[in-house]
Amino acid sequence: MKITRLDETKKEMPKMEGASGIRKQVPISKHDGSPVFSFRVFTFDPGGHTPFHTHPNEHINYVIEGNGAVVMESGEEREIKKGDFVLVLPNEKHQYRNRSTNDPLVIICAVPKEYE
Amino acid sequence: MKITRLDETKKEMPKMEGASGIRKQVPISKHDGSPVFSFRVFTFDPGGHTPFHTHPNEHINYVIEGNGAVVMESGEEREIKKGDFVLVLPNEKHQYRNRSTNDPLVIICAVPKEYE
Repeated sequence: MKITRLDETKKEMPKMEGASGIRKQVPISKHDGSPVFSFRVFTFDPGGHTPFHTHPNEHINYVIEGNGAVVMESGEEREIKKGDFVLVLPNEKHQYRNRSTNDPLVIICAVPKEYE
Repeated sequence: MKITRLDETKKEMPKMEGASGIRKQVPISKHDGSPVFSFRVFTFDPGGHTPFHTHPNEHINYVIEGNGAVVMESGEEREIKKGDFVLVLPNEKHQYRNRSTNDPLVIICAVPKEYE
């Protein structure tokens, strides 16, 4: 068993081309013996965003705090806010953005352990 | 892609012998096309708890709100509160409890899709 606090988990700049104003934490991963899935947390500064990209693994997200958007494959933006869950399917093009000019956007981004 | 709000997700009594005062929501599962993992949310009334049990799959938890405990295999209780992550390994005996006499405990409980 591992119990860990988000505010005690190391924050680092993710290696992700096209990302801006985001930091990553990895509270649970294969390094803890997790058999299948890793839980990462991304904190987006106001205006921060991931690249508009695609990859062969899914994401499952939960919005811990803030107000942002997911840009879908069609280019359409859908609002996401505290209490929302998102499933991004494998190879589905997407981008996360913080829409706020003042507050952070904090999301869980769970992925298969092979990806993180 | 699926975007869904926790407060719009159906709440039901889980079929779980030995559980008391808990309700379950399933915002993301295989029924949404999730390839590997399901995200459930359990809300514990004050004093509510799961059974002290074991099963062959892992849990990954995030505490959305409240103040509770995880009872470990040894019987030792560890506090969990908002912002905590927990990894319970396959076949590791465990129980979740709400320690509050006033407030709910709300946790994400992610599991392999075969289990939910």
